[in-house]
Amino acid sequence: MMGKNLITGGLGFLGSRVAKRLLDDGEEVVLFGRTTKSRFIKDIEEDKRLKIVQGDLRNFAQVIEAVKDNDIECIYHLGALLANEAEVSPQTAYEVNVNGTYHVLEAARLFKVSCVIFPSTIATYGQGIPDVVNEDVVQYPNNMYGVTKVIGERLGEYYYHRYGVNFRSVRFPAIVGPERTTGLSSYTSLMIIEPAMGRTYRTYVDEKVRCPFIYKNDAVNALVSLRYADEACLKRRVYNIEVISCTAAEEAAAVKKYLPEAKIEFHPDKKSVEILNAWAKDMDGTRAFQEWGFRLQYGLEETIKAVIDEVRQGTFTS
Amino acid sequence: MMGKNLITGGLGFLGSRVAKRLLDDGEEVVLFGRTTKSRFIKDIEEDKRLKIVQGDLRNFAQVIEAVKDNDIECIYHLGALLANEAEVSPQTAYEVNVNGTYHVLEAARLFKVSCVIFPSTIATYGQGIPDVVNEDVVQYPNNMYGVTKVIGERLGEYYYHRYGVNFRSVRFPAIVGPERTTGLSSYTSLMIIEPAMGRTYRTYVDEKVRCPFIYKNDAVNALVSLRYADEACLKRRVYNIEVISCTAAEEAAAVKKYLPEAKIEFHPDKKSVEILNAWAKDMDGTRAFQEWGFRLQYGLEETIKAVIDEVRQGTFTS
Amino acid sequence: MMGKNLITGGLGFLGSRVAKRLLDDGEEVVLFGRTTKSRFIKDIEEDKRLKIVQGDLRNFAQVIEAVKDNDIECIYHLGALLANEAEVSPQTAYEVNVNGTYHVLEAARLFKVSCVIFPSTIATYGQGIPDVVNEDVVQYPNNMYGVTKVIGERLGEYYYHRYGVNFRSVRFPAIVGPERTTGLSSYTSLMIIEPAMGRTYRTYVDEKVRCPFIYKNDAVNALVSLRYADEACLKRRVYNIEVISCTAAEEAAAVKKYLPEAKIEFHPDKKSVEILNAWAKDMDGTRAFQEWGFRLQYGLEETIKAVIDEVRQGTFTS
Amino acid sequence: MMGKNLITGGLGFLGSRVAKRLLDDGEEVVLFGRTTKSRFIKDIEEDKRLKIVQGDLRNFAQVIEAVKDNDIECIYHLGALLANEAEVSPQTAYEVNVNGTYHVLEAARLFKVSCVIFPSTIATYGQGIPDVVNEDVVQYPNNMYGVTKVIGERLGEYYYHRYGVNFRSVRFPAIVGPERTTGLSSYTSLMIIEPAMGRTYRTYVDEKVRCPFIYKNDAVNALVSLRYADEACLKRRVYNIEVISCTAAEEAAAVKKYLPEAKIEFHPDKKSVEILNAWAKDMDGTRAFQEWGFRLQYGLEETIKAVIDEVRQGTFTS
Repeated sequence: MMGKNLITGGLGFLGSRVAKRLLDDGEEVVLFGRTTKSRFIKDIEEDKRLKIVQGDLRNFAQVIEAVKDNDIECIYHLGALLANEAEVSPQTAYEVNVNGTYHVLEAARLFKVSCVIFPSTIATYGQGIPDVVNEDVVQYPNNMYGVTKVIGERLGEYYYHRYGVNFRSVRFPAIVGPERTTGLSSYTSLMIIEPAMGRTYRTYVDEKVRCPFIYKNDAVNALVSLRYADEACLKRRVYNIEVISCTAAEEAAAVKKYLPEAKIEFHPDKKSVEILNAWAKDMDGTRAFQEWGFRLQYGLEETIKAVIDEVRQGTFTS
Repeated sequence: MMGKNLITGGLGFLGSRVAKRLLDDGEEVVLFGRTTKSRFIKDIEEDKRLKIVQGDLRNFAQVIEAVKDNDIECIYHLGALLANEAEVSPQTAYEVNVNGTYHVLEAARLFKVSCVIFPSTIATYGQGIPDVVNEDVVQYPNNMYGVTKVIGERLGEYYYHRYGVNFRSVRFPAIVGPERTTGLSSYTSLMIIEPAMGRTYRTYVDEKVRCPFIYKNDAVNALVSLRYADEACLKRRVYNIEVISCTAAEEAAAVKKYLPEAKIEFHPDKKSVEILNAWAKDMDGTRAFQEWGFRLQYGLEETIKAVIDEVRQGTFTS
Repeated sequence: MMGKNLITGGLGFLGSRVAKRLLDDGEEVVLFGRTTKSRFIKDIEEDKRLKIVQGDLRNFAQVIEAVKDNDIECIYHLGALLANEAEVSPQTAYEVNVNGTYHVLEAARLFKVSCVIFPSTIATYGQGIPDVVNEDVVQYPNNMYGVTKVIGERLGEYYYHRYGVNFRSVRFPAIVGPERTTGLSSYTSLMIIEPAMGRTYRTYVDEKVRCPFIYKNDAVNALVSLRYADEACLKRRVYNIEVISCTAAEEAAAVKKYLPEAKIEFHPDKKSVEILNAWAKDMDGTRAFQEWGFRLQYGLEETIKAVIDEVRQGTFTS
Repeated sequence: MMGKNLITGGLGFLGSRVAKRLLDDGEEVVLFGRTTKSRFIKDIEEDKRLKIVQGDLRNFAQVIEAVKDNDIECIYHLGALLANEAEVSPQTAYEVNVNGTYHVLEAARLFKVSCVIFPSTIATYGQGIPDVVNEDVVQYPNNMYGVTKVIGERLGEYYYHRYGVNFRSVRFPAIVGPERTTGLSSYTSLMIIEPAMGRTYRTYVDEKVRCPFIYKNDAVNALVSLRYADEACLKRRVYNIEVISCTAAEEAAAVKKYLPEAKIEFHPDKKSVEILNAWAKDMDGTRAFQEWGFRLQYGLEETIKAVIDEVRQGTFTS
C-alpha cells in the first residue's frame, strides 16, 4: 500500500487545499504545523485519513520524528515564511525557510522518502531580466523570500543528484483566491473579491501594472500533477509554468463582464507600482507542458468566475 | 584610523596569502581559524600586526566575538570546506559553508563592518551552459561546494540591498600554486610542480581537457582590488573574472618551453575527464575589467615561470 | 545615566508585572517577545519608556541584536516554556529554555550587561527530598521544566564565575494571582478566584495537599530586590525564598474568613494529588533573608485579600 | 541477535579501551569520531567487527544517521571536550557537550536504542561539600566540564523517566594510565610514569594534595558492568563509585615500593594546589556496590604495578 503524504505548512492557505485534494483522491495526509487549529482546515479536519502533527520546521528533531513515525512516501514542503513576513525578519526566515528546508531534505534522505514537492516562486527572479522568464534565466532575487527559495531549489537539486531524493519544484506567480487579501500582489485577488461583495475596490496599482497570477486550484494541481509526472520525461527538477499575464486594467475589464456594477478605482501607490513593475511579467511554461503536461485549467475569466462563486457561496476557508 | 581585516579561513592556503598581501600593504590582520598553527603562515606569524583568533564558523558566538572585539572594518570570508571535503560530508558543508556564511553576514550587519569579500567559484555553473560564462548565465551547480557558494552569493547580495553590508564577490576558477597537489583540478598545478622537481608527471586527464585556472597571486589580487574598487562603478555584487583557458596539451607544451626535459604523460581517468569536461571552459571577465579594472597579471607563461621559481626556491608555504 | 532593562518573556503574566514595577520605579524597559500584542500589557503599553522588540529566544541573532541595540544594563530573563508546555514538547523546551538561556548569557557576556536575573523553580527538586528544601538539597527534577531550570542555574553560575556576568536567581513556588487558572498548582489561585466570582469551586486536590505558593507581587518583588541586593552580601547565585505553605484545607478555611459564602468542594483526582504530594512542601528562605533581606509581604491572608480585590475590581490583566 | 554498540568519542583514550573490551567480549562496535585515525585504536583497527563512522556530535544529522544505519543497541556516549579544552572555549563545550548529548539522547529516543551509558565526573561537585561525596550531595560545579556533565545527567534522567531511554551514568574521578600526561590531575599518572621511565618526576602538587583516581581498566569496567546491571536493582540513574583516595605523599611512597630508585620531588604550584584542594577528596561508592556490585579491581598498589608494566612493555596506545 502507498505511504502517506506529509504536508509542511499543512494548516495554511495552500497546504490545506493540497490536503483536501489528496484526501479527495483517496490518499492519506499528515499535516505538520506550529498549531493544530486553523480556519483553513475546517472542511477536512474530521476526515479520519487526516492526522495533524504539531511541530516547527526549525526543530530538526520534530521534522525527523514526523517523517519517521508516519510512513511518509511524499513530502509537500509548503511551510515557509511568505514574502512579507520574511522581509520583516530575514533572520527568522533564514531559520524557517533555509534551515527548515535542509531539515526536510535530510529527513527525506534518511528515511528514503520517495518524493519531495517544493513550491518556489517567480520572486527568485530579480531586476534586469526579460519580461518572459524561462528556466534558463539567471536568478538574482531581491527579497528574502526569493533568496530562501533559490536556496531551497539548489539544495533540493543536490539531494536529487547526490542522494536520489526525488525533489521536484514549480515556480509560482501570485496565487489568487478569496483568502488572499494581503501582500503586494493581493490586488489581483481583491479586484475580484471586493466587487463580488458589492464594495468599491480602490486599488494601489495603476492600470498598466502586470503581475502574473494563477487561481489556487491550478496551484494545487501543479503540485499534485508534478508529483505524479513520469520521471523519465523530466529533464530538470524545477519548472516554470504557464501563468495568467494581464494588466490591472485588463483584469478590471474582465471582472466587469461578470459583475457589471463593479467599481474599481485606481489610486496608485508609487512605491508599490515601482516594485511590481520590476518583477517578471510572464513565465514561459513550455517545458512544464512538454515534460509533464501542465497547463492552466483556469484562464483569466474562469479564475474570475471561480472567485466570485466562492465569495457568493461563502464556502472558502477564511 | 582604519579598522582591521578579519580573514576567515585565515590559516589556509589562500587566506594566508591574502594576509601576507595586506600586511605588506601596511594593514592589520586578524586570522580566524579552527587552529592557531599552520604551515601556511610561517612567513607572517611573527608579524606584530597579525593576530590569530581560534574559532569555528559554525559557532555563532565565536564569529560574533571575533568581529566585535577586534575593530573589524573588512571581512575576507574565505573559510569553507572545499569541493572534495564538501562532497565527503554535505552535512558538514551545510553547517560550515551555509550557516557559517550566515553568521559572518549577521556579524557584519550587527557590527557595521564596511565590507565583506567573498570568493565564489566557477563551480556554481553546472552542465548545459555556454563554454564561456558571464554573470548572466544561470547557476545550477552540480556539487555541494557550488551549491553552498550560490547560497553565499544570494545571501550576500541580500545583505547588501537590505542592510547596506558592502558584500563583494568574485568567482574563481582553479587556483594554481605549488601548494595545490590534490583535487580534481590539481593537474593544472602538478603539471608544473612535478617536472620542476625533476619527476615525471603522469596525469589523469587527456590532452583535450580544458579546466580554467589562475595563479594564486592573481586570486589574492582579485580579492584585494575588489575590496578597494570604487563603489560608484560597481553594477553588481558578484563578478566573473578573466582566467587562463588552455587545454592540458597546451599547458604541457608551455611547461616544456621552460623545462625542456619535462616528462608529462597522459593516462586519462575516464570519470575525472568526464566531470572536468562538463565544467565551464572559460569565464568572461569583461565586466570585472570594465567596472573595477581587473585583469590577470600572470598569463599562462608567467604562471608557469612563477610556480617553477617557487618550487626551486622552496619558499612556498607547504 | 542608568541603562535599560530587557525583559524576555516580557509580554507574559510575570514579565509584564516586572515591567510595570520597573516603570513605576522610574526605569526604562524593553520587552522581548514573540509577539507585540498581549492582554497582559494593556496597562503599560502606552508608556513612552516602554519599548517592545519582537524576537524569539531560539534565534541567537535576535537576542544579540536586542541586547546590543538597546543599551541594556539588566536582563530579567523570564522567557521560557512553562511546565505544561515543556512537557508537551521537551524538544521545543530544549530549544527555548536551554538554548535560549545560553543565548541570553552569551549576549550578556559579549555586551557586558551588568546583571542577569533568572527565575528558577521549586520544581528543580524531585522526589525523596526533605519536606523543607534549602540550597544544599540535591536537585533531581522530574519534569522537563525543572530540568531546563537546573541547566539555567548551572550555566548562569558558570558565567558569573568565569566571565563576571552578575547572574542572580531565585527559586519560585507556585505563583498565585487572578490570571492563574491553568496548570497543576492552579488550585491555589482558583480556590480564591472562583468563590470571589460567586461560583462554587470543585477542586481536583484533597484536603491534605500542600503546594507552596506566593502572591505574584511578592514574586515581582523577589526579582527586583535581588537585582538591587548588595553584591558583598551574596554568598551564592541561586536562592530559595520564604513561601506560603499550608494545606488545601487550611487555604479553604482562610478563604472563608473573607468570603463566608464560599463553596469549595474537594473531588480529588488521584494522579494530580500523587504528583503534588511528591513535591517539596516548603522552602527554607533563611539565606535569602540573611543575605539580601527578602521576606514575603503577602502572607496567606494578605494574598487571599489581594486576589479577591483584584477579582472584584476586574483590574487584573487577563 | 544483539545489536551493535556505538561509542561516541570512540577514537579517544577511554573510548578506544571500551571498544577493545567489547570486542574482546565478542560484541560489535561502531566508533563515532571527528577523524578516522587515532593512535589509540592501533590494536583494534583491523578487527572486522569494528566500524568507524566519521561525524561530529554537533551535527544532528550525523548523529541520527550513525544510530539509524547501524542497528545500534547501546550507545556509550563518551565524546566530549574534556576539562581543559572546555575551559579554553566554553562556547565550543556548549555545542559539543550539551547539544551533542541532546543529539545522542534524541537519536536514542527516535531509534529505540536500549541503553545509553554516560561517563559523568566528580567535577560536578564544587566547593563547600563534604570530603566524601555520595549521590545526595548538591552539585554546583565550578568548571565548564562539570557544568556540561550535570546537564547531561539531568537530561539523561529525564529521557529515562519520560521516554524509557535506559540512561545510566557513573561519576568518574581522575583516570590513571600511561597515556594521561596532561591536565591538572595528571600528577596521579606522572608520578608512576616518569619514575618507570627512569626519570626524576618534579611534581606541581604538595605532599598533602588528595585527588581521587582509578586505573583506566576500572573505568572501562564500571561502564561495561553498569550497562549489564540488572534494571530491577537500580534505584537511580547516576552513580558515584569507589575510588582510590590517598595523598600525593602516600602515592609517592607506594611507587617507591615497586621502584626503589624513584625520584619524586615536590615543587608545589600554589594555584594548582588550591584548585585541587577544593575538589572532593573521596567518593562513596556504597550504592554502586549494593545496586550493581561495582568494586575496584585495581587498588593503589595494583594500579601502580599495572602502569609500570604498561610503560615497560611499551604496549600502551600513546
